[in-house]
Amino acid sequence: MQIAIVLYDRFTALDAVGPYELLSRLPGAETVVCAEERGPVRSDTGVLGVTADASLEEVRAPDIVLVPGGPGQGLLMEHEPLLGWLRAVDATATWMATVCTGSLLLAAAGLLKGRPATTHWAAMEALSAYGAVPTPERVVRDGKYVTAAGVSAGIDMALELCGRIEGDEFAQALQLGIEYDPQPPYSAGSPATAPEHLVRTLRESPEKILGG
Amino acid sequence: MQIAIVLYDRFTALDAVGPYELLSRLPGAETVVCAEERGPVRSDTGVLGVTADASLEEVRAPDIVLVPGGPGQGLLMEHEPLLGWLRAVDATATWMATVCTGSLLLAAAGLLKGRPATTHWAAMEALSAYGAVPTPERVVRDGKYVTAAGVSAGIDMALELCGRIEGDEFAQALQLGIEYDPQPPYSAGSPATAPEHLVRTLRESPEKILGG
Repeated sequence: MQIAIVLYDRFTALDAVGPYELLSRLPGAETVVCAEERGPVRSDTGVLGVTADASLEEVRAPDIVLVPGGPGQGLLMEHEPLLGWLRAVDATATWMATVCTGSLLLAAAGLLKGRPATTHWAAMEALSAYGAVPTPERVVRDGKYVTAAGVSAGIDMALELCGRIEGDEFAQALQLGIEYDPQPPYSAGSPATAPEHLVRTLRESPEKILGG
Repeated sequence: MQIAIVLYDRFTALDAVGPYELLSRLPGAETVVCAEERGPVRSDTGVLGVTADASLEEVRAPDIVLVPGGPGQGLLMEHEPLLGWLRAVDATATWMATVCTGSLLLAAAGLLKGRPATTHWAAMEALSAYGAVPTPERVVRDGKYVTAAGVSAGIDMALELCGRIEGDEFAQALQLGIEYDPQPPYSAGSPATAPEHLVRTLRESPEKILGG
């Protein structure tokens, strides 16, 4: 079972690393970090350089594809080297998974037409422009397409995917292994619970808070 | 404000990347990924290569130090190039933060003597061998020393730290930005809630589940 984690310039690191931490521990998994070209890829803050060990062209038939989101996604919405690759691997992949605005790339590749899907809460409307059906849930599954909401939602998504692939007990063992017993000190993680002015600021000027 | 994220061979990626995603967005932060030597450092699964952009020696007076855990920690408990560096930067750092077994490195450096601290649930007893006071909470703060429980706990820790440094409102905005509204599909994230036989397996043979 090959798992391809797809990176691109200015991806959001936690989008990729959250699910990686779980999926890469599936029994029999061979996980490969790939990008259009081999070599270091910078995250959206510029701080993290993560090595792509393979080019997209070297990864021909992964079983699971994970596409993270991030500010760099916006530059790739017509970028055939990536979109064409997504369409090609989709033909044989068992699971196509995205986190945050990664789902917009899948949608731009034409793979989410008519399908319920999610993304970062502030990008929800963009999904419909590509024919997907915006569904504001934390994890949305439609057949083999699994999309997660913003950034940290990839952890919940991957845990669910591990359960479907290897069974609930294995997924629970992984959850215990990464001590995923979340206790955020605030309850501002969703636009439904966060102070309204913060929702407005992040929607209108995300760079004020998130930089990049 | 300089933030140093310390990597070493076979670190657990999410330990570092969870807090990175939040701390690196603090206003005025300059975040640097460092390791004993510059260059790519491999995570515990071998899958992820993260670039250290600076050697420890080049990072002399960081304001915040973040030490992740991971299987590689066990080989460094008498490794003076790292432990000596931790002692040296501790003299001027404002915050010394760890995730998972990263606290054992801080303890081995002699910095947690008599202090309450936490670590991965399965490593709790090891803390007392170095004079720390094992405290099974998700985030434990004692003065400038902030230790988080296993792997994913670093996200909660960093959110708390961001609140202390930049105020609750900024931390809430970050939480909303990464949509940290956790909804794990299972409730097995702590030994108190996980099935007992999984707790036993992970305590006795963690490699069966986590590999590495």
